[in-house]
Amino acid sequence: MIIVVKKGTNEEFLDNIKETLLANGMSFDVLQGSSYILIPVAGDLTTSDMGRFKSLPGVERIINISKPYYMVSKNYREKSVVDLGDGVLIGENFTMISGPCSVERADSLDKIAAFLSSLGVKILRGGTFKMRTSPYSFQGLGENGVKILNETAKRYNMKSVSEIVDVRHIDLFEQYIDIIQVGARNMMNFALLKELGKCSKPVLLKRSANATIDEFLSSAEYIMAEGNENIILCERGITSFDDSTRSMVNIAAIPIIKGLTHLPVILDPSHSVGNFKYVPDVSEAAVVLGADGLIIETHFNPISALSDGYQSLNFEHFESMYKKILKLCEFKKENL
Amino acid sequence: MIIVVKKGTNEEFLDNIKETLLANGMSFDVLQGSSYILIPVAGDLTTSDMGRFKSLPGVERIINISKPYYMVSKNYREKSVVDLGDGVLIGENFTMISGPCSVERADSLDKIAAFLSSLGVKILRGGTFKMRTSPYSFQGLGENGVKILNETAKRYNMKSVSEIVDVRHIDLFEQYIDIIQVGARNMMNFALLKELGKCSKPVLLKRSANATIDEFLSSAEYIMAEGNENIILCERGITSFDDSTRSMVNIAAIPIIKGLTHLPVILDPSHSVGNFKYVPDVSEAAVVLGADGLIIETHFNPISALSDGYQSLNFEHFESMYKKILKLCEFKKENL
Amino acid sequence: MIIVVKKGTNEEFLDNIKETLLANGMSFDVLQGSSYILIPVAGDLTTSDMGRFKSLPGVERIINISKPYYMVSKNYREKSVVDLGDGVLIGENFTMISGPCSVERADSLDKIAAFLSSLGVKILRGGTFKMRTSPYSFQGLGENGVKILNETAKRYNMKSVSEIVDVRHIDLFEQYIDIIQVGARNMMNFALLKELGKCSKPVLLKRSANATIDEFLSSAEYIMAEGNENIILCERGITSFDDSTRSMVNIAAIPIIKGLTHLPVILDPSHSVGNFKYVPDVSEAAVVLGADGLIIETHFNPISALSDGYQSLNFEHFESMYKKILKLCEFKKENL
Amino acid sequence: MIIVVKKGTNEEFLDNIKETLLANGMSFDVLQGSSYILIPVAGDLTTSDMGRFKSLPGVERIINISKPYYMVSKNYREKSVVDLGDGVLIGENFTMISGPCSVERADSLDKIAAFLSSLGVKILRGGTFKMRTSPYSFQGLGENGVKILNETAKRYNMKSVSEIVDVRHIDLFEQYIDIIQVGARNMMNFALLKELGKCSKPVLLKRSANATIDEFLSSAEYIMAEGNENIILCERGITSFDDSTRSMVNIAAIPIIKGLTHLPVILDPSHSVGNFKYVPDVSEAAVVLGADGLIIETHFNPISALSDGYQSLNFEHFESMYKKILKLCEFKKENL
Repeated sequence: MIIVVKKGTNEEFLDNIKETLLANGMSFDVLQGSSYILIPVAGDLTTSDMGRFKSLPGVERIINISKPYYMVSKNYREKSVVDLGDGVLIGENFTMISGPCSVERADSLDKIAAFLSSLGVKILRGGTFKMRTSPYSFQGLGENGVKILNETAKRYNMKSVSEIVDVRHIDLFEQYIDIIQVGARNMMNFALLKELGKCSKPVLLKRSANATIDEFLSSAEYIMAEGNENIILCERGITSFDDSTRSMVNIAAIPIIKGLTHLPVILDPSHSVGNFKYVPDVSEAAVVLGADGLIIETHFNPISALSDGYQSLNFEHFESMYKKILKLCEFKKENL
Repeated sequence: MIIVVKKGTNEEFLDNIKETLLANGMSFDVLQGSSYILIPVAGDLTTSDMGRFKSLPGVERIINISKPYYMVSKNYREKSVVDLGDGVLIGENFTMISGPCSVERADSLDKIAAFLSSLGVKILRGGTFKMRTSPYSFQGLGENGVKILNETAKRYNMKSVSEIVDVRHIDLFEQYIDIIQVGARNMMNFALLKELGKCSKPVLLKRSANATIDEFLSSAEYIMAEGNENIILCERGITSFDDSTRSMVNIAAIPIIKGLTHLPVILDPSHSVGNFKYVPDVSEAAVVLGADGLIIETHFNPISALSDGYQSLNFEHFESMYKKILKLCEFKKENL
Repeated sequence: MIIVVKKGTNEEFLDNIKETLLANGMSFDVLQGSSYILIPVAGDLTTSDMGRFKSLPGVERIINISKPYYMVSKNYREKSVVDLGDGVLIGENFTMISGPCSVERADSLDKIAAFLSSLGVKILRGGTFKMRTSPYSFQGLGENGVKILNETAKRYNMKSVSEIVDVRHIDLFEQYIDIIQVGARNMMNFALLKELGKCSKPVLLKRSANATIDEFLSSAEYIMAEGNENIILCERGITSFDDSTRSMVNIAAIPIIKGLTHLPVILDPSHSVGNFKYVPDVSEAAVVLGADGLIIETHFNPISALSDGYQSLNFEHFESMYKKILKLCEFKKENL
Repeated sequence: MIIVVKKGTNEEFLDNIKETLLANGMSFDVLQGSSYILIPVAGDLTTSDMGRFKSLPGVERIINISKPYYMVSKNYREKSVVDLGDGVLIGENFTMISGPCSVERADSLDKIAAFLSSLGVKILRGGTFKMRTSPYSFQGLGENGVKILNETAKRYNMKSVSEIVDVRHIDLFEQYIDIIQVGARNMMNFALLKELGKCSKPVLLKRSANATIDEFLSSAEYIMAEGNENIILCERGITSFDDSTRSMVNIAAIPIIKGLTHLPVILDPSHSVGNFKYVPDVSEAAVVLGADGLIIETHFNPISALSDGYQSLNFEHFESMYKKILKLCEFKKENL
C-alpha cells in the first residue's frame, strides 16, 4: 500500500505514522514529492489491515496497489488445464457442460443425458441440493439426486457436475460427483471453500452477484491456498438496477478475468440472462470473447421442469445452437 | 401470480395455458379485461416455479403478487421481542450492542467489556471466526475466541454475540454464545440457516450486500420455518457504484423493513459506513428512523486493532455518542 | 395498469377507488379473483399518473403493463433503416463508425480520415463540443471543430457524426453534421430531444449510464413523437459497483433492445469498456450478438490525443480488428 | 496523479514515460521505492487526460489524488450561506422548502401557499416545465406556470423555486424565479450549468441518480467557475438494484458531502423515497444528520395531483411533521 501524506503536515503526525508502521513490523520508504509525501509500505498484510492506517492523523489517503490473491494470478502460472480423466479437459479446447437445472427423476435425466451425449457433450450438470430464495420452493432430491446423477453420467461416459450447498456434504460429493460446483451465493462461504481446497475433485466456482472480479479471484485463492489447483471459474453476472436480465454479465468480463488468472473461465448464460431466447446469442458471443466453455440448462420439456424452466433450452434449440457454436469455434481458431 | 395474455391471442394458446396449469394442479380464474385476459393463479408455489409459465406461447407477462415469506411478516404477528434472559430484551426499548471487531486477547476484551458495561451496555459483540476476502488476512481466534468472549461477557453480566461461519460450529456457538450472528456473506447459506432454525439461541441475521429486502426477509423465513422465532434483523447496506461508504444503507430502509415484519430491526453503522467519523451521525439518525438498536464497533485503541480499525470508535467517541443517543431516545418517545 | 385490491377489503374503500377512477375519466373493469380483486384500467395516462392511485386506501399494489413508448416499438414497425444518402445506410448491413474522440486539428483529423476511408469506413466520428466532468478539462474546438469535421468528411466522401451538447447549436449541427449525436449524459435532456425531433438530420442517441432499457426507448420516443424517424440507438453501458470497466455493457443488451424496437442498434465499445485492449474482443462479440454497427475511437497516436487516449485504438490495431470483423460478418450471414 | 511503474521495468519504457510527460509540459518526480517506482505528476490537467498515460508501456497503474473541483471545496471556503433577500437565508438555520410537484392552477397553488406560509415556510416550490420519462405524460404549464408561481409566492412573501429544463429559458427564470433548480437528469447538462454560472439567481443543483459525490461537486464547480457562488446542493439518491424506494439516499451522504464542501446541502425526501409514508421519518433523520434544509412535496389533495401524488404529503401530514422537525432542530442545537 501507499500512504499519502500532504506536504507540510505536522512533523509529529509524520513521526507517529512511521512509529506505528514500525510497531506493526512493516518496512517502508518515505518519498518526498513536491506536494505530497508518499510512503510505500511493504510487509505482511496478513497480520494487519490497511484500513486502520486511514485513521492516523495526517493521513490523506491509503492506496492499495497489491491484489489480494497470488496463486490464481498470471504471475504464478500462465495457463491451467483441468483434467477430468478419460480425455476430458477444461481449458484446452472449448467445453460444453449441459443438463437440467435440477435432477428430477432417473428416467428424465437419462433422456437428457442420452440426447446430450449423442451430440458429443461430455459433462452433465444437474442440481441435487438446490439454493432457493424461498424455503417453500422445491429444494432438490438431495443425496438421492447425487446418486442418480452419478449413475446417469457413468451410463453415458460423461462427467458430472453438481452444486454443493453444505460443507457436511463434501464426502458425499467427493465420492459421487466429478466437478463440485460452488454457487454464487456461497462464493464467500469461506468455510466451504477451505474444505474444498483439501478435496481431490475439481471445483467449479461461480461468481457472486455482488462480487468484484478481485473478490471472485480471492475466493478462488481460498481454494488454491489449501492445495486444490483444479478450479474452473464461472462468470454469471452481477446485480444492477437494470432488470432486463436476471443478472448482468459484463460483455468484457471474460477477457478481463482471463487477463488476470491462469484458471479456465466459463460462462453460465442460462442463470445470468434468465431467458432461453437470448441464450444462443450470448453463448456465441462467449466463444468469440474467449470463454473456455459454457454451462447451459437443457430440458426436453422446459415447461414441466421443476425449476427454472424459463431459462432452459429445449432439445431442438440446444442442438441448433451447439452446432453453430462448434462451427464458430473452428472459425475463431483460424480467423480471430 | 397473474398470467397476462393479450386480448385476441390464439384460442389454442389460451387452451394450452389452461391445460398446463391444470396439469400442474393449480387453480385459477380467467378474467376477461378489455385489452388483456388476466389469469390469477392460486396454489402451491413449492412444487412449481412461476418462471416456467413465461415460456408458454401467448403469455405476455407473469406478475408476482405474493411475497416469498409469511411467518416473518406482519400478517403473522404484529411485533416480536427477543428475550435474552436476565431482563435483556431486544425489540422493546432501544438496544446498544458493542465491542471490538475481533476478539484479540482476553485482557484487551476485558478492558472493552469493562468500559461498555460501566456505561450500561448489556450486549458484547466480538468476532471469533472472521470472514475475510483474502485467505491471508487475520482469520480470528476461533474456538478459543468463543470461550474468551463467553467468559468476558459473563464477568460483566453481559450477553454475547458473535458470527458463525461454519455450520459445523453450531454446537460450539449454542453452548457459549447468547446471540448467533449470521454475516452478510452467509445470508443465503441456507444449509446454515436451516440448522439455526432448529437451534435454541436467538439469531442476528445480517442483510447481504446484494439482497433486496424481500430476499432478506426470505432468509429470515428459512430460520423461522424451522421453529426458531428469535430473530433479530440487521441492516448493513448494499453494494452500489457510489464508493463514498463501504456499503450503502438506504436512509429509508429501517422504516420500510419494520413496516413489513414483526421482527426487531437494528443497524450496523460501523461496517456499512466503514468510517468511524460518520458513525455517530448515522447512529443518531437510526434512532429517529425507528431502529430497535445498533451494533457498533468500539476499541480502546482502534489503530492497533487487528481488523477494521478505521471503522471502530474509541472509548471517548463511543461514550459521547452513547449519551447523546440515550437523550435522543427520550426526546423521541415524547416528541416524535 | 392493474390495481390490485385484497379480497375482503372494506366496501367503502372499493367504492372510493372506483369513484376516483371515474372522476379521472378512466375506464376500467372490476374482476373478482379468488384472493384478489383486480381492476385493469384503460385510458389516457398522459393526464394522470399511476403512482397517485397507490395512496388510495385499500390499494395493495399497482401493476404497470404498458410500455411508456409506442412509435419506437416493434408494434409500430418491424424494421427501420436510416438512409444517410450516397448509399450509406444504417440498419441494413453492419456499419462501422470511427474517428478520434475529439477533433483536435485539421491535419490530424485528415490523417485519421484518410486512413479510415482507405479501409472502406464511411462514417467519421469526432467530438467538437466535449462533455467533461471537470470544467477545467479540454472542452473541444467548438464551432471550428464542427467545420473541420464537415470539411474533412467531405474530402473523403464520408458522413460525419458529432455530439451536440447545447440545444442552441441545433442550426449549426443541422448545417454541417450528417448524424447528430446525443451523449449519455443528455439522454434525458428532453428540451434537446424535442428540438431534434423537428430536425432534418438523423440522431444517434446514446443510452444514459443510469437508464433502464425502457427509459432509453422512451427518450427515443421523444424524438420520434416530434416527427424525426431517423434514429440510431447506441448502447454504451450502465453504472455498477464493478469498476473493471468504465461502464458495464450487458452481454445480452443488444438482442434485448433489438427485440423491442425497429430502430438500428449499435455499440460503443470504446467509451463503455474504456480500455483499448478489450475493444477488439467486445467488437467481435457485438457482431455475433446482432449489433447493426459499432462506433469506435481511433487515433494515429493515442498517447498524444487530447482526450480519452487510453480507450482509442491505433491504426494497426484498428485495421487488424476491422478485417476480422468483416470476415466475421460474412461468417455470421452464412452460419449463425 | 501518481504513475506506478514496477521495479525492474525496462529502462526504455521508463525513459519513454519521462519524455512523454516532458512533451506534455508536466513536471514530476521519480521516486524509487522497493518494489515500485512512483512518479507523482504535477501540472495542468486541463490540457491533458490522466487516462492516456495508462497505455504507455511499463505503466502498471495511474492513481488520481486530486479532486476534480476546487472552488466548491472546503479548501476554498469554510462555509457558504445563500442570501435570498428579505431575511431568507439557506445554510444558516434549517430551511424548509415546500409546495406541489407541479403548478397546476393559480387557485390550487394559492391554497397550498397560504397553508405553508401560515406555518412559517418561506420558500415555495412548484414544477412548471416538467421532466417526464414519457413524452405523453403531463409536461407542466410552462411559462404560464412560471408566472403563476411568481405571483403566488409574492402574495405570501415567499421565495420561489422551480426547475429549469432548457437553457433558452434562463431569461424567463431569472426574471420570475428566486432559486433556479437544476434537476437530477440535467446535472451533467454542462451547457446549462455554464449559463447558470453567469446568472444572478441562486441555483439549487440536484444530484444525478448515477453520479458519484465527486461528480456532483464537479457539476457545482461548473457553475461556480463561471462566477455564481450562490449554489444549494440537493441530495436525492442514486440508482441501485433495490427497488424498495424510487432512489436510494445513502444514510451517510449528507455528513459526507458537507465534509467536502462549504455549500449548503439539503435533502429531497419526496422524490428519493417516492412514498409519502416514509417522508416524515426520513425528514427527521435529515435534521439529525446535519442537512441545511428539506424540499418536500405538499398538496391539499395528493390523489388529484397531476403528477407524483403518491409521494406528496397532505396538509395534515405536513403540519404534523413540520412541527416535529422544528422541535427536533431545537433539541439538536442543545444536545447533539
